[in-house]
Amino acid sequence: VMLVTAAQAQPDPLPSWNEGTAKAAIVDFVRKTTDVGSPDFVPAEDRVATFDQDGTLWVEHPVYSQLVYILDRVGPLVKAKPELAKIEPFRTVLSGDREAIAKLSLHDLEKLAAATLTGMSVETFAKEAKAWTDSAKDKRWQRPYTELTYQPMQEVLSYLRANGYKTYIVTGGGQDFVRIYSYKTYGIPPEQVVGSAGAVTFSYGKDGKPVLTKDPKLLVNDNNAGKPEAIHLMIGRRPHAAFGNSTGDRQMLEYTAAGDGARLAMLVLHDDATREYAYGPAAGLPDTKVGAFTQELFDEAKKEGWTVISMKRDWKKIFSFE
Amino acid sequence: VMLVTAAQAQPDPLPSWNEGTAKAAIVDFVRKTTDVGSPDFVPAEDRVATFDQDGTLWVEHPVYSQLVYILDRVGPLVKAKPELAKIEPFRTVLSGDREAIAKLSLHDLEKLAAATLTGMSVETFAKEAKAWTDSAKDKRWQRPYTELTYQPMQEVLSYLRANGYKTYIVTGGGQDFVRIYSYKTYGIPPEQVVGSAGAVTFSYGKDGKPVLTKDPKLLVNDNNAGKPEAIHLMIGRRPHAAFGNSTGDRQMLEYTAAGDGARLAMLVLHDDATREYAYGPAAGLPDTKVGAFTQELFDEAKKEGWTVISMKRDWKKIFSFE
Ligand SMILES: [Ca+2]
Ligand SMILES: [Ca+2]
Repeated sequence: VMLVTAAQAQPDPLPSWNEGTAKAAIVDFVRKTTDVGSPDFVPAEDRVATFDQDGTLWVEHPVYSQLVYILDRVGPLVKAKPELAKIEPFRTVLSGDREAIAKLSLHDLEKLAAATLTGMSVETFAKEAKAWTDSAKDKRWQRPYTELTYQPMQEVLSYLRANGYKTYIVTGGGQDFVRIYSYKTYGIPPEQVVGSAGAVTFSYGKDGKPVLTKDPKLLVNDNNAGKPEAIHLMIGRRPHAAFGNSTGDRQMLEYTAAGDGARLAMLVLHDDATREYAYGPAAGLPDTKVGAFTQELFDEAKKEGWTVISMKRDWKKIFSFE
Repeated sequence: VMLVTAAQAQPDPLPSWNEGTAKAAIVDFVRKTTDVGSPDFVPAEDRVATFDQDGTLWVEHPVYSQLVYILDRVGPLVKAKPELAKIEPFRTVLSGDREAIAKLSLHDLEKLAAATLTGMSVETFAKEAKAWTDSAKDKRWQRPYTELTYQPMQEVLSYLRANGYKTYIVTGGGQDFVRIYSYKTYGIPPEQVVGSAGAVTFSYGKDGKPVLTKDPKLLVNDNNAGKPEAIHLMIGRRPHAAFGNSTGDRQMLEYTAAGDGARLAMLVLHDDATREYAYGPAAGLPDTKVGAFTQELFDEAKKEGWTVISMKRDWKKIFSFE
C-alpha cells in the first residue's frame, strides 16, 4: 500500500495532456525503455528521440515562421542594396501587397531565401536572426513566435530528457535559423538541431581572421526521405521515438518504427480550429499547402500502429500562456 | 592551510603527462573557463572541445587504420564478387605484394574505398566494420587498433568531460567507420563523431522495410578547411579547445583560436621514434605522407601561441598497456 501511494504521489509529467491513448502511449514507451527489467530496455546512452518542429513543436499557420523572417529581411536588405528595389521578387515583397506575395512561386521564394539567408558570415546571420526572433510577433496571438510552442510537447521533451533521452529537432526548416533559439525555446542545444542546411565556406577576412560564409548551395534537404538520411548523417543512429505532423515526416516515422524493440511514432493532427488551427486534409479537415496531413498518412498511421494526437481531444492546454 | 592541503590532495587528472608548458596549458584553460569568477568563464552548455583522431588520439603510422580495413575487406569482397579478382586495383591488393600496394594511386584507393565502404546498408557496414575492429591487430604491437590510443589524450578527454565539456572527434577518416568504436574506445558517442561522410539513400527493401544505403558520393570532406565547415554543419558553434597533429588540422585550430576569451589550440608532435614514431618534417624530423606536420605549421603554432605537445618530453606514458 505504501508503494502504491508513493507511485500515485509522483507528479504527473504530462499535466497538459488529457488521459487517453496518446498520453498512455508516451508513458508506456518511457516505462518500457527505461525499466532495467523490461525486455525493451534501452541503455541510457542509446536513447534518442527526434521531433519535427513546424506544426509539431510550434505553430506553422498561416505560414512558417522562417518565411515571415525571410520576407521581413527584404526591407533591410534593399536598404543595403537599393538596386534590388526594382527587381522581382523583391519589388513585390516591398509592395506589401499580400495577395501578390502569397502568389510568389517556389523559384521566387528560393531567390528570397538565398538573398536573406546566405552571403554573410555565420555570425552576422546569427545576429540578424536573433534580433528578429527576439522582437517579431505573430499577428493572431501578438506574441513572439518562440512563445507559440505547444505546452504538451514541451512536457514530452522534458519528460523524455528526465528519462535519459537526448532530444533532437529534425526539421525541414533552416538548421542555422532554428539553432539560434532552440536552446532557449526548447532546451535543445544547437548541436541537437538537424535541419535543412546550406554549405559554408571557410576563408580569411581582411583582418586575416577565419570566416565561415553561408553559401546559397543546399547540402542537406531535411524533408521526406531526407529526414532519415540527415538523421544518419548528424546523429548516426536510429531514433527510438519520433514525432511529426505531416507527410514530410513519413519516412522519419517509418525508419524509427522499423527498429527493434519498443518504438514510439506519433503524429500531431491539427483538428482544433478554435484554440489553434484545423487542417488535414486527413479526417475530413480542410486541405492546406502548409503542413499537409494526408488521408494516406492517416491510414498508414492506423495500419502501422502509430499514434495520432488529436489537439482537440488530447491536449488540455495548447500554449503555456493560456 | 586546510584548503591548500585539500587542493593538493585532489588526484592529478593528467597523471600520464610530465609537468611542463603543455600540461600547464590544459589545466590553466580548464580552470579559466570553468571558474565562475573568471573573466573567461564559459557556461556549461557552451563547452565544446574537438579532437582530430589519427595521430592525435591514436597511432596513424605506418598507415591509417581505416586504410588497413579497406585492404582487409578486399578478400571477402572478391569472394562475393569473383569477377573483381582480375580487375585492378583489386588484383594488386589480392597479390599481397606490399611494394605494389604501397604504390597504388589515390584514384585506386578511392576505387577500393567505394567498393568496400559503400553499396551496402548502414547496418551491414556497421556489422562488417565492428567485426574487423574487434579482431584486427596492429603488426608492431600485436594489439587491436582500438588499444593503440594515447593514454595522455584519453586523460584529456576525461578531464574535459569531467569539467562539463562535450568532446567531439573531428576526423578526416570516415564518419561511419569511427562511429562504430568511438564510444567504447573514447567514451565519445556516435553523434559526437564528425568525419568525412558519404551520402546515404533511403529506400524500401524487398520486405517493405526502410533501408539506408551508403552511396559512393562524398558529402562532407572533413580535412583542412573542411574541418571548420563540418564543425559548423554538425555542431553549430565554435569550439573552445581543439587538438590536432597535422596540416589537415590547421584551419580547425585557426577557427578555434580566433574565438573570444580563452581558447586552447594544441598540436601533437610525433618526436618519439622509440616509444612510437618520429615524423614531421617540422623540427628536423623525418618527412612523411601520413600525417605531415610541416615546419610552416610549427612556425604558425609558435607565432599564434598554440601549444606543441612533444610526445617524447610531455608524455610520461604513451599507451595504457605500457
Ligand atoms: Ca511539420
Ligand atoms: Ca591527424
